[in-house]
Amino acid sequence: MGISGNEIKRIRSLAQKKYRDSLGLFTVEGEKMVGEALASSFTVEEVYRRDEIGEEAMSRISMLASPSPVLAVVRKPENLALPQDCAGDFFGDKGFYMGLDTIRDPGNLGTILRIADWFGVDGILATEDTVDIFNPKVVQATMGAIFRVRFRYTVLPDAIRTLLKNGGRAYGTFMDGENIYTSGFGTGKDYPVMVITGNEADGISEEVESLVSARLAIPSYPAGRHGSESLNAAVASAIAVAEFRRRAMLQAACKPGMPFDFQE
Amino acid sequence: MGISGNEIKRIRSLAQKKYRDSLGLFTVEGEKMVGEALASSFTVEEVYRRDEIGEEAMSRISMLASPSPVLAVVRKPENLALPQDCAGDFFGDKGFYMGLDTIRDPGNLGTILRIADWFGVDGILATEDTVDIFNPKVVQATMGAIFRVRFRYTVLPDAIRTLLKNGGRAYGTFMDGENIYTSGFGTGKDYPVMVITGNEADGISEEVESLVSARLAIPSYPAGRHGSESLNAAVASAIAVAEFRRRAMLQAACKPGMPFDFQE
Repeated sequence: MGISGNEIKRIRSLAQKKYRDSLGLFTVEGEKMVGEALASSFTVEEVYRRDEIGEEAMSRISMLASPSPVLAVVRKPENLALPQDCAGDFFGDKGFYMGLDTIRDPGNLGTILRIADWFGVDGILATEDTVDIFNPKVVQATMGAIFRVRFRYTVLPDAIRTLLKNGGRAYGTFMDGENIYTSGFGTGKDYPVMVITGNEADGISEEVESLVSARLAIPSYPAGRHGSESLNAAVASAIAVAEFRRRAMLQAACKPGMPFDFQE
Repeated sequence: MGISGNEIKRIRSLAQKKYRDSLGLFTVEGEKMVGEALASSFTVEEVYRRDEIGEEAMSRISMLASPSPVLAVVRKPENLALPQDCAGDFFGDKGFYMGLDTIRDPGNLGTILRIADWFGVDGILATEDTVDIFNPKVVQATMGAIFRVRFRYTVLPDAIRTLLKNGGRAYGTFMDGENIYTSGFGTGKDYPVMVITGNEADGISEEVESLVSARLAIPSYPAGRHGSESLNAAVASAIAVAEFRRRAMLQAACKPGMPFDFQE
């Protein structure tokens, strides 16, 4: 089995969002990722193996510096946009969500999906100008989490308003916020909860900032020392999400007889 | 002021480690980074501004997809290798260190330096096959932390042996380790301390694993659930370092009259 020049051209075009959108396809690479795609609810349209199409063709269709032995072309879900009047259905009563206020770096978005998967986050809502989740660099950085995490694009401020109306809380991380460790964050009485991560350069937008229940900060050490101006966006979100889950585990340990996952 | 073809070629060559090593130079880009280089103890040899050399020349010397308005050529420190018999001097009595057991991804190394800077880590020791710290992708991802964090390459197992001989502790993060939140990690009685991060694909090497004082794990949520197989290496190191510092702050708060930074 070979591969035609036109097929190569079509697959290469999937590096660009406009062709992913018009063809409704995206690519995943590597044995692990292709295996996860095949095991997922996504439809795998084509699988190309280096052993079949040859090393040169593989390096032409691969988006990686070192082409992996296998690449799959996968069907994209039709539409990841969450209409405003569906936000209420997105949030469960006791869910823990992440909000992304315009993440631009593909590696960051992929890493955030991996974090959400590890910590059992119930869903991610991102502004519409967040980088495309099917960008090959995002897909590869998720290490498979893309096939497991609930993710939608939406008008984030409107979704936060819905969350607040449902009795939930929204927390953002800021440089000059309240110490996350001594704040009321993650005490478990404020579900549904969203932790919002801001843009790599500009942080959280003014509109979103005006909506948050509390402005949190991850303290530098020693407190008040500012060597780095900030933490990387994915790293800051990871520390906030880990802290939320740490507190949930502490609380569960304090409630004998309750199931470990005290959200149930 | 213009720039010659030979100069362009020389600067472009600094994308490769062999030319950085032979010329003893590396590049930094962007107003913020160049400003930090100028303010640091590093020697800035040359500064190129788009306004002076023109957009086309700038895009030829830049290693970035979107060339920034300014690029500096900076002198590399002579030698970042830490000889085995100097490891004792590297570790202070009360210091908090990071060990990198072969970090290959430039973005991860840059992010780890930024984490170390934020959390006031006293130094980083990396295996000699960790990616070059002067790789342009590392430099840019540090967001300036490269000019502030103590960093050396060394034979990591030997350095850990020295740390242990000095009465210190070394902790590694593993998938199946002890829950970091319920472990004795970061109780402050075990300085000098090192937190070791393993390779992106293979984790911590067997030799280093045989030396660690405890094998720690960042619990997924709910505990035992394994959606993602792991966290990104930089993310895992960030959560471990943040947890160590959180405990140090808690302890400081329990000791009225002590300076905030209880290591002093």
